[in-house]
Amino acid sequence: MKILIINGPNLNLLGTRQPEIYGSKTFDSYFSELQFGFQEVELAKYQSNVEGELINKLQEAQEQEYDGIILNPGAYTHTSLAIADAVSSIKTAVVEVHISNVMDREQIRHTSLISKNAVGTISGFGLNGYKLAIQSFLNTREAN
Amino acid sequence: MKILIINGPNLNLLGTRQPEIYGSKTFDSYFSELQFGFQEVELAKYQSNVEGELINKLQEAQEQEYDGIILNPGAYTHTSLAIADAVSSIKTAVVEVHISNVMDREQIRHTSLISKNAVGTISGFGLNGYKLAIQSFLNTREAN
Amino acid sequence: MKILIINGPNLNLLGTRQPEIYGSKTFDSYFSELQFGFQEVELAKYQSNVEGELINKLQEAQEQEYDGIILNPGAYTHTSLAIADAVSSIKTAVVEVHISNVMDREQIRHTSLISKNAVGTISGFGLNGYKLAIQSFLNTREAN
Amino acid sequence: MKILIINGPNLNLLGTRQPEIYGSKTFDSYFSELQFGFQEVELAKYQSNVEGELINKLQEAQEQEYDGIILNPGAYTHTSLAIADAVSSIKTAVVEVHISNVMDREQIRHTSLISKNAVGTISGFGLNGYKLAIQSFLNTREAN
Amino acid sequence: MKILIINGPNLNLLGTRQPEIYGSKTFDSYFSELQFGFQEVELAKYQSNVEGELINKLQEAQEQEYDGIILNPGAYTHTSLAIADAVSSIKTAVVEVHISNVMDREQIRHTSLISKNAVGTISGFGLNGYKLAIQSFLNTREAN
Amino acid sequence: MKILIINGPNLNLLGTRQPEIYGSKTFDSYFSELQFGFQEVELAKYQSNVEGELINKLQEAQEQEYDGIILNPGAYTHTSLAIADAVSSIKTAVVEVHISNVMDREQIRHTSLISKNAVGTISGFGLNGYKLAIQSFLNTREAN
Amino acid sequence: MKILIINGPNLNLLGTRQPEIYGSKTFDSYFSELQFGFQEVELAKYQSNVEGELINKLQEAQEQEYDGIILNPGAYTHTSLAIADAVSSIKTAVVEVHISNVMDREQIRHTSLISKNAVGTISGFGLNGYKLAIQSFLNTREAN
Amino acid sequence: MKILIINGPNLNLLGTRQPEIYGSKTFDSYFSELQFGFQEVELAKYQSNVEGELINKLQEAQEQEYDGIILNPGAYTHTSLAIADAVSSIKTAVVEVHISNVMDREQIRHTSLISKNAVGTISGFGLNGYKLAIQSFLNTREAN
Amino acid sequence: MKILIINGPNLNLLGTRQPEIYGSKTFDSYFSELQFGFQEVELAKYQSNVEGELINKLQEAQEQEYDGIILNPGAYTHTSLAIADAVSSIKTAVVEVHISNVMDREQIRHTSLISKNAVGTISGFGLNGYKLAIQSFLNTREAN
Amino acid sequence: MKILIINGPNLNLLGTRQPEIYGSKTFDSYFSELQFGFQEVELAKYQSNVEGELINKLQEAQEQEYDGIILNPGAYTHTSLAIADAVSSIKTAVVEVHISNVMDREQIRHTSLISKNAVGTISGFGLNGYKLAIQSFLNTREAN
Amino acid sequence: MKILIINGPNLNLLGTRQPEIYGSKTFDSYFSELQFGFQEVELAKYQSNVEGELINKLQEAQEQEYDGIILNPGAYTHTSLAIADAVSSIKTAVVEVHISNVMDREQIRHTSLISKNAVGTISGFGLNGYKLAIQSFLNTREAN
Amino acid sequence: MKILIINGPNLNLLGTRQPEIYGSKTFDSYFSELQFGFQEVELAKYQSNVEGELINKLQEAQEQEYDGIILNPGAYTHTSLAIADAVSSIKTAVVEVHISNVMDREQIRHTSLISKNAVGTISGFGLNGYKLAIQSFLNTREAN
Repeated sequence: MKILIINGPNLNLLGTRQPEIYGSKTFDSYFSELQFGFQEVELAKYQSNVEGELINKLQEAQEQEYDGIILNPGAYTHTSLAIADAVSSIKTAVVEVHISNVMDREQIRHTSLISKNAVGTISGFGLNGYKLAIQSFLNTREAN
Repeated sequence: MKILIINGPNLNLLGTRQPEIYGSKTFDSYFSELQFGFQEVELAKYQSNVEGELINKLQEAQEQEYDGIILNPGAYTHTSLAIADAVSSIKTAVVEVHISNVMDREQIRHTSLISKNAVGTISGFGLNGYKLAIQSFLNTREAN
Repeated sequence: MKILIINGPNLNLLGTRQPEIYGSKTFDSYFSELQFGFQEVELAKYQSNVEGELINKLQEAQEQEYDGIILNPGAYTHTSLAIADAVSSIKTAVVEVHISNVMDREQIRHTSLISKNAVGTISGFGLNGYKLAIQSFLNTREAN
Repeated sequence: MKILIINGPNLNLLGTRQPEIYGSKTFDSYFSELQFGFQEVELAKYQSNVEGELINKLQEAQEQEYDGIILNPGAYTHTSLAIADAVSSIKTAVVEVHISNVMDREQIRHTSLISKNAVGTISGFGLNGYKLAIQSFLNTREAN
Repeated sequence: MKILIINGPNLNLLGTRQPEIYGSKTFDSYFSELQFGFQEVELAKYQSNVEGELINKLQEAQEQEYDGIILNPGAYTHTSLAIADAVSSIKTAVVEVHISNVMDREQIRHTSLISKNAVGTISGFGLNGYKLAIQSFLNTREAN
Repeated sequence: MKILIINGPNLNLLGTRQPEIYGSKTFDSYFSELQFGFQEVELAKYQSNVEGELINKLQEAQEQEYDGIILNPGAYTHTSLAIADAVSSIKTAVVEVHISNVMDREQIRHTSLISKNAVGTISGFGLNGYKLAIQSFLNTREAN
Repeated sequence: MKILIINGPNLNLLGTRQPEIYGSKTFDSYFSELQFGFQEVELAKYQSNVEGELINKLQEAQEQEYDGIILNPGAYTHTSLAIADAVSSIKTAVVEVHISNVMDREQIRHTSLISKNAVGTISGFGLNGYKLAIQSFLNTREAN
Repeated sequence: MKILIINGPNLNLLGTRQPEIYGSKTFDSYFSELQFGFQEVELAKYQSNVEGELINKLQEAQEQEYDGIILNPGAYTHTSLAIADAVSSIKTAVVEVHISNVMDREQIRHTSLISKNAVGTISGFGLNGYKLAIQSFLNTREAN
Repeated sequence: MKILIINGPNLNLLGTRQPEIYGSKTFDSYFSELQFGFQEVELAKYQSNVEGELINKLQEAQEQEYDGIILNPGAYTHTSLAIADAVSSIKTAVVEVHISNVMDREQIRHTSLISKNAVGTISGFGLNGYKLAIQSFLNTREAN
Repeated sequence: MKILIINGPNLNLLGTRQPEIYGSKTFDSYFSELQFGFQEVELAKYQSNVEGELINKLQEAQEQEYDGIILNPGAYTHTSLAIADAVSSIKTAVVEVHISNVMDREQIRHTSLISKNAVGTISGFGLNGYKLAIQSFLNTREAN
Repeated sequence: MKILIINGPNLNLLGTRQPEIYGSKTFDSYFSELQFGFQEVELAKYQSNVEGELINKLQEAQEQEYDGIILNPGAYTHTSLAIADAVSSIKTAVVEVHISNVMDREQIRHTSLISKNAVGTISGFGLNGYKLAIQSFLNTREAN
Repeated sequence: MKILIINGPNLNLLGTRQPEIYGSKTFDSYFSELQFGFQEVELAKYQSNVEGELINKLQEAQEQEYDGIILNPGAYTHTSLAIADAVSSIKTAVVEVHISNVMDREQIRHTSLISKNAVGTISGFGLNGYKLAIQSFLNTREAN
């Protein structure tokens, strides 16, 4: 099983940015743990601050035959109809993850343009949201 | 580990109501599978169509020392500030689950009054959302 | 033909509450007249102030094989997505009745969450709205 | 008893326009059935696509001493304050009828400017809504 | 000086419709008084319930070289962008008159689509609003 | 007949402020013309930039037995519920005047909090609005 | 004098729930103090988390001839039109009390559906709000 | 190929009304050029200021077997649900044309009730919008 | 104990203005009763129609070492952020009082800008609201 | 004549993405047809998923002296004020094209931030919208 | 160069009011420093809590031939159209200053009615905002 | 002192784009003047039309140990939550500058998503806004 994790803007700062919200672990070290914990899954990761590059990556992921994409669109969650369109344009299943509980933050973060095109959404579980997302793909495979 | 699943209005009809949205499996049979899959967890379940009884149960769950509550508030998600208050009033951690992808349904279902008081929210994964919620509790315990 | 009339909150006060809006006849005496006028129909009635009990009754009515339900959800018309879900979850046809002309009252009463799931809505005809609702079921039977 | 049925814009297309919403019977053939079914009532009908002609007819109906008017304002339901004013300006009782369940269609059709000035509103019962409206006038006469 | 008074929908019912709002004098008798009071002005009047005929008349008035138009658009005040466009399309000065104090009625009557294209607006003075409108044209002529 | 003209904020700048909107005549010179034109009316005038002083004056005017007040509340038209309350609290009739056509300016000027408590409103006729307001009082006296 | 205190959802947790907002005294111990302080008043209390049971109690209170009801509807303040209807349906005077200053909390708590049907509202005085409510009934009796 | 051009309110004033927005050519002279330019198309034209007559014409056009209708609904674009219904009720393809760039005018002109029922919309190209609309019909025929 | 009562705009008219809302007793006579009823409290009163003078007084009250302020901001309740700021800027406790039940009046009176900065709010109890406010200060002192 | 076609996000997927909305032809093959059909026009094309690169291209197009730009901004139509600014910042005429009928899709697609700065907008004609856009440039040249 | 600083409501409390937002320096001591730092500028200052007096001062400043006005309208920023009008009515350039970062406070403080009429706005720099405002006047003089 | 100026979309066109709003000086020549005027400050500049590259630069600036950033986000001011997040994620102080008075332009430009995370905002002073921003950094250094 091949899964790609795509992180949006400012998520490269994880571990340093607002640790009271996002925790103090970098994504790289978390990613190693994650790969270690799911030996049967081939994980890849990508991060960009550029909306259009996230779209490029979503489109490529389809060609590269990933079994699933875990997308944390960061602030673009709330403003990018273009990423939402990309998610609905590709056939690869996309699970949306938010590290923080977005409904417990400012009003503008309460609406996700992406969710309706994703398989499902997981938010508020910290970095473990990525773990749950992988488990959701494994659950689905199991069910089939 | 003791976990209580609380289901809100009309979720007793699972398996018969709008199967194109909610699937055709009853919650009872799913619950058996779930208990079978997590031998190390002691699961309990409760369902009511009455808003206030859901509040009663949330309050009792705290006294009965559950380690976690999985709450699917059904339609009360979008209208019940009283349940939201109950969630914030108790110390037991609550994970919110929605079977369907609520953001892909009518406008009124896009807002959850509950989420900001829950640990996190999982929506769109069908009945497997309950499984992910249990995994989220296990992930947390592991981390501690 | 078996028809169940379900009345929502405060409708047990009919005849005493705001008679300038709701008239001065109690529902019980009206119900007797109604049963007398439709000998070929078996009528039953139910009233509760509890949102969830109205949902329970709607679900039971399906099991008890009523041919139709006449639902006056009272104030829950405007606030209960859970009752609306119950109406859409059962197969029994539901006709929505309002005694007063809700569009001629306060703003909050101009929107019905229930209507879109009901067969149709009858409002403003006083207690005779229930009579029209029964006639609507008879009309339908006739047409089939 | 003399009753006038006034139909608004595009209702002359009944039977051909969007039959999945409005059915496939023309209003003329339905009207014959209706007159046949209510021998004791003298029925008349009028249709126009012009907002102001509907107002003219409402005003005339008062002079022609109809006992009641059944008004299906079509799309003007949602946009015509002028028709609403006409309804409130005349003494003849007006019952508002909608063939389709307007609350189950687009947002703009959820508000009726007319209803608050009508005796009552009947919607969602297909062409039988006209039948119910006549029955409502008979019910009222009976009650007096 | 030639002035045309154009009255919109339901204003033909003046004197009979809601006399507590509009008074009990018919427009015809008021018009006679008005003509009698302003001997130096040649008055004409027109009424229609049809939005488009009001537009036709506004366009004609320009060709017939009226010095001014007094327009009471009735309920179309609040819904007719087409009449507003007609007012702005012609060169003849238009004064908007409302018999009742529209700001003391329902919300929907608080906005006029017409006003911004009119010379000015006079509302709340009963039938005497027409008199003031004529005086406004005389004041202007005097000033030139 | 005794009439008091009350002008609100910045109207002391008439003749110098934005002459393209308000004209280039000072209010003092206009007032002299006005008094000259209505020999049978005793005119007084008052201006203040202070909301509360306008309220004081409205209250005093009642005690000083003016037959009518002409009020141009300037920008307070759109923001002062307190002046609106003062107008409704006194028995002296108040006519609201605006020099410019407020509906042809910015959105915030389209709503008047005052109008519903005034006898009527005159707007868009330049300084001649005051003249029309006096004429409205004379018209009323004549009618009695 | 007989007064009934009705407390809504989650108020049974007083003393343990969010003590920084609601204080750390239980309602039972406060109630004893209150009864002790008003020897001339016969106090009763009721609490339920179920909206409809609060309505039941309001209706019963009328039959049990209480002189007044003190109602703290908790979160139902902001969502329950049905309780608001119950308050307006009974003749017993109802005073609305909120322990916290609701206007200093989230937006959704700024609107009370209940207040317009209550005699008056007291909010922000902590548990002493109940004391003030009793004093309000005594003040009224004194005045009669 | 037979194409009917239907123009709505005030478009009979083309060439004289607001030439800075609509140009100074009359529609008649433009129509001659248009007919001259498309020899293979049989063009007809119709204009009315009356909303309902535009509906009448749309319905007739279907019976007269036009291959296409070019509709410029003028101000009714933004207020007429009845015309929108007519467009969706007939089978003849309708292309919506606006002479001016409606999105560069007032807010109220930014929404078209008609567009969603039309094949497509062309706006901002001046009178040449009609030419493009004809070309769109020719393009479609070519493609078939 | 020293308490200052500050009344806002138009409250000097108490007893004469809209007696159906505000009663027919002047504030002066009520104040005498109030002082008589609370011998242990030193009461002072102030009224102004000027928003800024109310702010001045609130600031002075702090310097004059009042133990509490009872503020009835009248119409400024709904429009004055500046008074709200003054209340939050001073250390003296402020209790907000409204004579009428503001939630049972027009929409604009449903929001108070002041409340969130006050200790608490009392509304709907007529002039006795002032009495309750004094009692609230006495209750607090007692508690300390 | 030199014309540049700029396509926004996800339009590189044309032919594969949601063919029920966008058709099954790739843009490349359509572009060849287009170039073939307009021998007298020199066509170029550009696509990017990156908002800022679309801005870069719009700015470059001005320097490269294109006679016109055909812009399909895709989802950025509804969210990008920056592209709108770019369109208004350059002198080259821009025609906006949408393949689908955006007004017949979700609410968020009903507003275009771009349109007001474009010459005109063409939507709903499928890929032939590009053809019409070229014809619009030819029409304009012809007219000059 | 002569510059007048006008401070609005509650700014006389600077140094004592909410020092976590506004700092603990009084405006008088800051003003001395400011005058000391700009020897070439003649500074004056004015403060009032009364909206209308701020308008009076703005009007006087024009007559007293100040080269510029620095206006901190305090809470009136968000509610006073009358001050906004005063700023636009005078010829003296006005620079708007806010001590705190208003966009980081409550929603109601995010909108300034004043800004559009000011030369420019400076906010968030604490008391140094006044210094920057003086520098802005010096920069402008330099440029001329 | 090291300060980086970051300019957003279309600001590379300064001097050519809408000179009536932005002036006719290029940013390069203004930058030279600026550097010349502040010899003690080391200035750098960066411009991009790509939202994500602006985020990249803000993150790099922190690493390159600038003492401050002057950010003119152009149109992204009003739409980019991602840039707002970047500003709040880095420790380097950011001052927001707008050349034009954004509050005097279209509605959509009245809201800044960025401001609440910036130290302060300066708008409306033309290119001199950058100068004031530098002065703000110098003022702060001076104060420390």
